[in-house]
Amino acid sequence: MESGDLKIAWARQYMPVLSSIRKRFVEEQPFSGMTIGMALHVEAKTAVLVETLAAGGAEVHITGCNPLSTQDDVAMALDTRERIHSYARRGAGIEEYYAAIDRVLDARPAITIDDGMDLIHRIHTERRDVLDAIIGGCEETTTGIHRLRAMAQEGALRFPVVAVNDTPMKHFFDNVHGTGESSLASIMITTNVLIAGKRFVVAGYGYCGRGLAQKARSLGARVIVTEVDPRRALQAHMDGFEVMTMDQAAPLGDIFVTTTGNTSILTERHLPNLKDGAILANAGHFNVEIDVDWLASHADSTVHRDGIDTYVLGGKAVHVLAEGRLVNLATPKGMGHPVEVMDLSFAVQALSAEFIAKHGRELAPGVHDVPSAIDEAVARLKLDALGLSIDRLTPEQETYMSSWTIGT
Amino acid sequence: MESGDLKIAWARQYMPVLSSIRKRFVEEQPFSGMTIGMALHVEAKTAVLVETLAAGGAEVHITGCNPLSTQDDVAMALDTRERIHSYARRGAGIEEYYAAIDRVLDARPAITIDDGMDLIHRIHTERRDVLDAIIGGCEETTTGIHRLRAMAQEGALRFPVVAVNDTPMKHFFDNVHGTGESSLASIMITTNVLIAGKRFVVAGYGYCGRGLAQKARSLGARVIVTEVDPRRALQAHMDGFEVMTMDQAAPLGDIFVTTTGNTSILTERHLPNLKDGAILANAGHFNVEIDVDWLASHADSTVHRDGIDTYVLGGKAVHVLAEGRLVNLATPKGMGHPVEVMDLSFAVQALSAEFIAKHGRELAPGVHDVPSAIDEAVARLKLDALGLSIDRLTPEQETYMSSWTIGT
Amino acid sequence: MESGDLKIAWARQYMPVLSSIRKRFVEEQPFSGMTIGMALHVEAKTAVLVETLAAGGAEVHITGCNPLSTQDDVAMALDTRERIHSYARRGAGIEEYYAAIDRVLDARPAITIDDGMDLIHRIHTERRDVLDAIIGGCEETTTGIHRLRAMAQEGALRFPVVAVNDTPMKHFFDNVHGTGESSLASIMITTNVLIAGKRFVVAGYGYCGRGLAQKARSLGARVIVTEVDPRRALQAHMDGFEVMTMDQAAPLGDIFVTTTGNTSILTERHLPNLKDGAILANAGHFNVEIDVDWLASHADSTVHRDGIDTYVLGGKAVHVLAEGRLVNLATPKGMGHPVEVMDLSFAVQALSAEFIAKHGRELAPGVHDVPSAIDEAVARLKLDALGLSIDRLTPEQETYMSSWTIGT
Amino acid sequence: MESGDLKIAWARQYMPVLSSIRKRFVEEQPFSGMTIGMALHVEAKTAVLVETLAAGGAEVHITGCNPLSTQDDVAMALDTRERIHSYARRGAGIEEYYAAIDRVLDARPAITIDDGMDLIHRIHTERRDVLDAIIGGCEETTTGIHRLRAMAQEGALRFPVVAVNDTPMKHFFDNVHGTGESSLASIMITTNVLIAGKRFVVAGYGYCGRGLAQKARSLGARVIVTEVDPRRALQAHMDGFEVMTMDQAAPLGDIFVTTTGNTSILTERHLPNLKDGAILANAGHFNVEIDVDWLASHADSTVHRDGIDTYVLGGKAVHVLAEGRLVNLATPKGMGHPVEVMDLSFAVQALSAEFIAKHGRELAPGVHDVPSAIDEAVARLKLDALGLSIDRLTPEQETYMSSWTIGT
Repeated sequence: MESGDLKIAWARQYMPVLSSIRKRFVEEQPFSGMTIGMALHVEAKTAVLVETLAAGGAEVHITGCNPLSTQDDVAMALDTRERIHSYARRGAGIEEYYAAIDRVLDARPAITIDDGMDLIHRIHTERRDVLDAIIGGCEETTTGIHRLRAMAQEGALRFPVVAVNDTPMKHFFDNVHGTGESSLASIMITTNVLIAGKRFVVAGYGYCGRGLAQKARSLGARVIVTEVDPRRALQAHMDGFEVMTMDQAAPLGDIFVTTTGNTSILTERHLPNLKDGAILANAGHFNVEIDVDWLASHADSTVHRDGIDTYVLGGKAVHVLAEGRLVNLATPKGMGHPVEVMDLSFAVQALSAEFIAKHGRELAPGVHDVPSAIDEAVARLKLDALGLSIDRLTPEQETYMSSWTIGT
Repeated sequence: MESGDLKIAWARQYMPVLSSIRKRFVEEQPFSGMTIGMALHVEAKTAVLVETLAAGGAEVHITGCNPLSTQDDVAMALDTRERIHSYARRGAGIEEYYAAIDRVLDARPAITIDDGMDLIHRIHTERRDVLDAIIGGCEETTTGIHRLRAMAQEGALRFPVVAVNDTPMKHFFDNVHGTGESSLASIMITTNVLIAGKRFVVAGYGYCGRGLAQKARSLGARVIVTEVDPRRALQAHMDGFEVMTMDQAAPLGDIFVTTTGNTSILTERHLPNLKDGAILANAGHFNVEIDVDWLASHADSTVHRDGIDTYVLGGKAVHVLAEGRLVNLATPKGMGHPVEVMDLSFAVQALSAEFIAKHGRELAPGVHDVPSAIDEAVARLKLDALGLSIDRLTPEQETYMSSWTIGT
Repeated sequence: MESGDLKIAWARQYMPVLSSIRKRFVEEQPFSGMTIGMALHVEAKTAVLVETLAAGGAEVHITGCNPLSTQDDVAMALDTRERIHSYARRGAGIEEYYAAIDRVLDARPAITIDDGMDLIHRIHTERRDVLDAIIGGCEETTTGIHRLRAMAQEGALRFPVVAVNDTPMKHFFDNVHGTGESSLASIMITTNVLIAGKRFVVAGYGYCGRGLAQKARSLGARVIVTEVDPRRALQAHMDGFEVMTMDQAAPLGDIFVTTTGNTSILTERHLPNLKDGAILANAGHFNVEIDVDWLASHADSTVHRDGIDTYVLGGKAVHVLAEGRLVNLATPKGMGHPVEVMDLSFAVQALSAEFIAKHGRELAPGVHDVPSAIDEAVARLKLDALGLSIDRLTPEQETYMSSWTIGT
Repeated sequence: MESGDLKIAWARQYMPVLSSIRKRFVEEQPFSGMTIGMALHVEAKTAVLVETLAAGGAEVHITGCNPLSTQDDVAMALDTRERIHSYARRGAGIEEYYAAIDRVLDARPAITIDDGMDLIHRIHTERRDVLDAIIGGCEETTTGIHRLRAMAQEGALRFPVVAVNDTPMKHFFDNVHGTGESSLASIMITTNVLIAGKRFVVAGYGYCGRGLAQKARSLGARVIVTEVDPRRALQAHMDGFEVMTMDQAAPLGDIFVTTTGNTSILTERHLPNLKDGAILANAGHFNVEIDVDWLASHADSTVHRDGIDTYVLGGKAVHVLAEGRLVNLATPKGMGHPVEVMDLSFAVQALSAEFIAKHGRELAPGVHDVPSAIDEAVARLKLDALGLSIDRLTPEQETYMSSWTIGT
């Protein structure tokens, strides 16, 4: 087998939920005659989703959603398969990147699947010509959802989009465990520094930040959390973390990881105050959380290592991992989210795409939650794959939960 | 000082948020001329809430919400204060219990504060005569809220009730940390058994179950979780717990704690299969999760110790703590929720009561969420009390979060 | 059953290792005709050890090793049994305390069993008249061992003493888990404060300190460790704790627990700098770690609650639990070490006593380690009681471990 | 800078203890005129030790201690430096490997520094000609020490060797944190599987196993421990892990990591019973813990990926990482121990080498512990580098610890 196929085969064996969905799709052909356009990280796990959709009858056109996250051997392996067309290339420049997005849109997809809203953004700006072909879309990231909601609020969003991100499945598995484990692994392998004993600063205490903070602490780090929401800040405090402002944390931290989904978390306000040897990484979707441009233009000197750019400021070294892009994915050794996590997220994607294929025309333009039944179905498929049984409510219990006449 | 006053003084010093609210209430007198009826666990922390409401101008009439949770010295200390009338007594029988509730209602309260819906239930059944005096109510427990929603759905609820339970504050602090710590402490002190190495079965993986499972594990227990919701079950699995049905867990567990808020969790189906020496406790609001009646009527013999009833079934001992009532409160040494947790929960209560006093007449009958501003205000007051500073969104960040036009 | 017997029966069921040793002792009567003198915490678990030794043929005379740790109902229940004589009384004054020790020595024991070296100390100072009857002794605490080694080094120790404390069993189970769990439970139940979010200062990072630090953190505390040994200090740092001097920690901590086995840990140097509301507890053997006398003589005022003495210094309250005595034992609700932990420690005691009965006359005066075979035998008995199987070295593996001729 | 130098510079900045030792060595020249022979993993961190020794006046000849752990760019960078000669090459065959060892020995070292006893083994078998030049040696691994002790017991060891492994520093930092973090990171990056929710089997509960078990659990794994020592097995149980035999664990585990230092842990007895998709890794020094030969000769088919060999047995895939060699080092992306951990271990090495240079001729042949003063000095240097202060015993406390005349 070629290396791309080897990688896909490896991922496939740890994605039992997609396997079981694929079996059903082969029989039921829910996408028969439809085109699906995708802009996702093109690597082995995504390939298994793509296969699943194609097995369900779709013609799939796919490109990347980040210039550094494409694995070329996987992209090539995908492109050789029936009904699958891949345009992604690692290291593509901005022009090539958008050209690839346009090639996906040229296929006039009925369904879009985004990770960061690039397809939907392009459709609503440069490529309004394809709007009429579209039934609906799916969006994978918190960041994308934020922006889609802003768009919807302005009345600018022209078709229904399922917020695949906004599900319990995604929050608890993808964000907490997926981002947590893979970001730490990537930081450890890239830097070879010890986590134990380090001052580890996590910006943001959403699901990603929470997972990361807890896992870093359990490896032995002393964790500081920065937040803007007082309830989340208090939660971090009660969970045993130090809570402070980034101004206060800047001179204390050994390692910083941003997870806010917002912009300008580590800026000129903080960067000159970092300790010598501080390591900065980003686990949020876009590379806007660390102001790398400021570093590049103010550094006395710069050294580039594999996945690490060192900026020397006033005699102190600041190390930025993966150029401030997604650290679990964009370092040379990064593998992105763990396979099993993507099995769940992509299973929700596959069923949401099916939902749009079947019901998209009945939905109003705007952002829609994943139907609870889909989320729950995926959970049940996973429990089945794990061989785990759980209890069911008895009729007596269902009655109890819905009654109010039983006193103390 | 008398023992009741000593206890209240102890609690007061660890309740800085209520202190700061009390200062404002003294000035603003939001409850001036109003009567508040309460049915809560009458112990030191509750007393600080009662003081706070009275300081705000209210005439407060209070009784217990559980026959075993009243601390008589605290009840007496409260009753001596101005504008506070207490009718609670530890060990009150059913008749006395409801007579006390009626005495509270005889005062014709404008606002009710419940922990388990006893006042509201009584008002809607036996005491509809006081309905016209009521502006609205607050309810403290998950269990009570469940039943209020059921009532509202049937159109039976006649006034607005704020679901004090349903806030991030309550979930993360009261349920996760409060129930978790205090239940474990109560089990350890009552039984003197080691948690480390034990098979610890947690029924339910809501906020209470989650806190308890994690804290028990971190003391060295091997934790099994039972659930009916597949997503929560999968979450427990990913968090590293064993997931199975109660049928499977029954013969494995050394210690069982129920946290479901539902009924009939450990029943005749499971009880005969427990190991010799198994310990059963309940951390859900009502004593309906463990079928103690079945044990009592099927045991070959019974031994009563302080807080522990031992039922011998076919030669095997089953130990039930606190008669299956709230284990953190109803064991002889139980102290209920930690002080600081109740400071937060009761601060939300106090501000919600103020909200009803001011806006209750504008609200439709039914269950209302705590206004987000209240929850947030309490979080800020607590952060202030802790001396913690947090970041604030910059205008640039606010713009970023609400815009959708910035691409990859 | 009387309350003392009920307590002993409760403990007995969670002490399977002593049960199995007792069965053998009944048959083999290793102490036939011998007198054993004991000074231990007289409560239910100790009673099961006493029973076990008496079942092995010994005449047992026992008194307490701490004026506040005796449970009178258990002492009475013991005293009614054949071949067992108890002289302990809760709250005994110094005079009565030493009179009771003398009554134990009046019985001219062949074997002494100490927890804190009171019998051995008395024998070597006031009661040298009984020296000739003694074959040897066992000592339970780290603190006692320290002092015995000092004595041996000076040539003052006149008979062999087995350091029951100095075994892997004791370190890992009794110190780490036993002291950790029971101290935390006692602090939580006595104060009702939340551990989550607190600054929790642990003085000493030996086995006790390590267990306590880890368990407090896992409940949500932010833990500071103070140490005098640089390697242990560094270990605490790598394990993720804040490391600093007590001078630095004094104004930061919310809760302090001393575990050093040394004297003068919290003194006039630190006490005036504590925060208002700071809580102080001791988990070391003697009440010399916190300078309670200084507090008592310098406080502006003092308030006594059950298990809590509050000293007001310059307007700030300092709360001392259990008068600075062992917090897991000497608070009103304290239960001492968990049952299963004492099952292991006391099983080592029982087998060490048997070892002295059989081989004591062959041993030189001085401190002797517990024979490894005893420690291992206890571990195997416990694994059997738990129904756990473990691997055994194969002949190939034994050869490999003892050979040096196999290269890369 | 070249890539080798870049890597060494990276490591150097996180090795403050060696930096401070180096400064002293430059002044004091403890190795002036001496040759040091080394067989260690030749990568960036080792290079900093080599530099430190050379800075102290030594002529250093170095080769690898594992065919797959050499980083060629680092080896080349070292070889260009004054007084440093490197013979290591990644992927060297057995013949070249031993030829390189012989070249080191040809330089007739006065001091040997081993990681796995290859130099000492060779000297005592094929190269007894160099014995007369040797003052003494240092050995880094548990495994090497085991074998050296066996050798010493047979009277075969001809010079003094300092057991650098056997120190608190090494156990707590290198084994617990170093092996733990780096093995997990390497497994995660190589396989991309999620640790959360997995059945993770750790063979051996020594320091390495303990660190790995705890860190895997804290990422969300359900951990099983296998052991041959009953006390360690019981400790694992009390720490909250499942304890069982490897026969029982084989069909349950998703991921297996061996840490025993012994041979034949996963053999034909277990391998056919593994689950489909099981992942096997070794964190012990030698590749003898997993019987890879048996797999290779019994597999129906085999697939090689980067760092993963898949053997198909009866339709089930078994994946072996790094050919059963040290998983933290020998996978393609493996980086070995974290930098800071090696700073401590290598600081002990450097000071032990200095100790041999100064006192080696006074030592008897055999295995010697690292002098406690060295271990402590390294801890103090590290605390200084971290800016941490710790307490010192007061005269009163020293007296207390060494006295026995103070009673209850």
